[in-house]
Amino acid sequence: MFASLSQRRVGIIGLGLMGGSLGMALRAGRFCRSVVGSARREDTRRQAVALRAVDEAFSDEAEAARSSDLIVLATPVRTIMRQVRQLGPIAPPGAVLIDLGSTKQEIVAVMADLPRHVQAIGGHPMCGKERAGIEAASADLYRGAVFCLTPLESTSAETLELAQELARAVGARPLVVEARRHDALVAAISHLPYVMAAMLTATAGEAAADDELTWRLAASGFRDASRLAGSDVDMMLDILLTNRQNVARLARRAAGRMDALAAAIEGSDEAALRAALADALRIWRAVYR
Amino acid sequence: MFASLSQRRVGIIGLGLMGGSLGMALRAGRFCRSVVGSARREDTRRQAVALRAVDEAFSDEAEAARSSDLIVLATPVRTIMRQVRQLGPIAPPGAVLIDLGSTKQEIVAVMADLPRHVQAIGGHPMCGKERAGIEAASADLYRGAVFCLTPLESTSAETLELAQELARAVGARPLVVEARRHDALVAAISHLPYVMAAMLTATAGEAAADDELTWRLAASGFRDASRLAGSDVDMMLDILLTNRQNVARLARRAAGRMDALAAAIEGSDEAALRAALADALRIWRAVYR
Repeated sequence: MFASLSQRRVGIIGLGLMGGSLGMALRAGRFCRSVVGSARREDTRRQAVALRAVDEAFSDEAEAARSSDLIVLATPVRTIMRQVRQLGPIAPPGAVLIDLGSTKQEIVAVMADLPRHVQAIGGHPMCGKERAGIEAASADLYRGAVFCLTPLESTSAETLELAQELARAVGARPLVVEARRHDALVAAISHLPYVMAAMLTATAGEAAADDELTWRLAASGFRDASRLAGSDVDMMLDILLTNRQNVARLARRAAGRMDALAAAIEGSDEAALRAALADALRIWRAVYR
Repeated sequence: MFASLSQRRVGIIGLGLMGGSLGMALRAGRFCRSVVGSARREDTRRQAVALRAVDEAFSDEAEAARSSDLIVLATPVRTIMRQVRQLGPIAPPGAVLIDLGSTKQEIVAVMADLPRHVQAIGGHPMCGKERAGIEAASADLYRGAVFCLTPLESTSAETLELAQELARAVGARPLVVEARRHDALVAAISHLPYVMAAMLTATAGEAAADDELTWRLAASGFRDASRLAGSDVDMMLDILLTNRQNVARLARRAAGRMDALAAAIEGSDEAALRAALADALRIWRAVYR
């Protein structure tokens, strides 16, 4: 008998913003039998227990994995890849492994090599904050978010259903999408915005080094446009390096558009400038109005 | 005797977001003798009166200018330049002319040619919204915002003081800065973010044309990063075309940084990538933490 979420012992590997919030939501709604977790730092483990994100927190991720039958990897992407390899094989028979990483192709490729006794599926909840860590966790982080699920060829219907149950339990909307397609999509609406926010901040920072008044003039426009530059570098590094072709291609396209716009501005080419800006406005309005 | 703000009849030319909000703040606080305004569209004039942004609204900007002794030009930059030329000379003796345009060098250059009977000073309140029009106006739009003032050589100390009084009356913090320096500063923290938000939106829109799932995955990160792309195109066109060198230079620099980042991503140059992202994070934290 395949166990449903209410019968599962959930083990969350990594108790940061995503893992901590997941545990808080699961425990608050009593959606599963128990929630354990693992984190390297003692302070994180203590906070996770205090915030009711987990019933128990281990320092040893293997111990958390062994004592769970729904293992959730909530660490940076390349750490997830190592943990799939190391924790997947020691998971108890019948266990299901899911991750919350922001890229999916490389992760599901590693999952495909797991032994048969453990089922696996990729996951990516489309939520987050520029602040990381359990301090920023909250039970409603997932509420209303799209929760991408990327099944493997070997993922059973029951495993997919369990993953959907997990997503819905924390208030998210599951969306099944192929891993390759997922990575192309998030490159455009998540990784490119990050890259642009970071390069905006770096360019403005260069200007600020020349004139100390710069930041005094920055208002809500700059704050919002640059917000993603405040993301955790280790997390983003893993994301960009596991979605290289997609991100590099889009970053170059956006850079090309900026160069073309710079030429139109410099040459006072009002028609070209108006066309480019009106096109962006039309797209923006179609999404947000 | 030079009249202070409380004795002035303020005439706001252009009753959109900026002009409408200014009128609402001035009238709510009874900071001046009266507020009139002008707008081309009848609907705007009716709304401006209904929202208590003005005591009276004229269709003829010349009529509003002639009946005021503190004329505030709250239109797009190139319209401001035309209005300085046309309305400045017909302003009553002792009148002060100020504008709210987002670039200052070209405006101040036109102001410098005004006849002696009218005093002039450039102004730029660092606030706004991506929504334009009197519908979006509110009396607290200026509250807490930096209000740049760019005096001309011919601007008297009394005129500067009146402009500062105006800025403080609506809750803003006046900051005197040379026009040339102002334009370099806002290129970095206002015009570049707009250009990048627009090009981000255009690039993501291109991806969305290939895959209809794209926008379903967009979350708060994309929304904030792209928000400025929703700005009014006519307004932004004027801004970019009157700050060409500064904006083109910074857009090219940011594009160059994005190309370099794309190369580092594609080549898995982790050290270069980490250095660039950590640099952006360090700058961002210094401003926002």
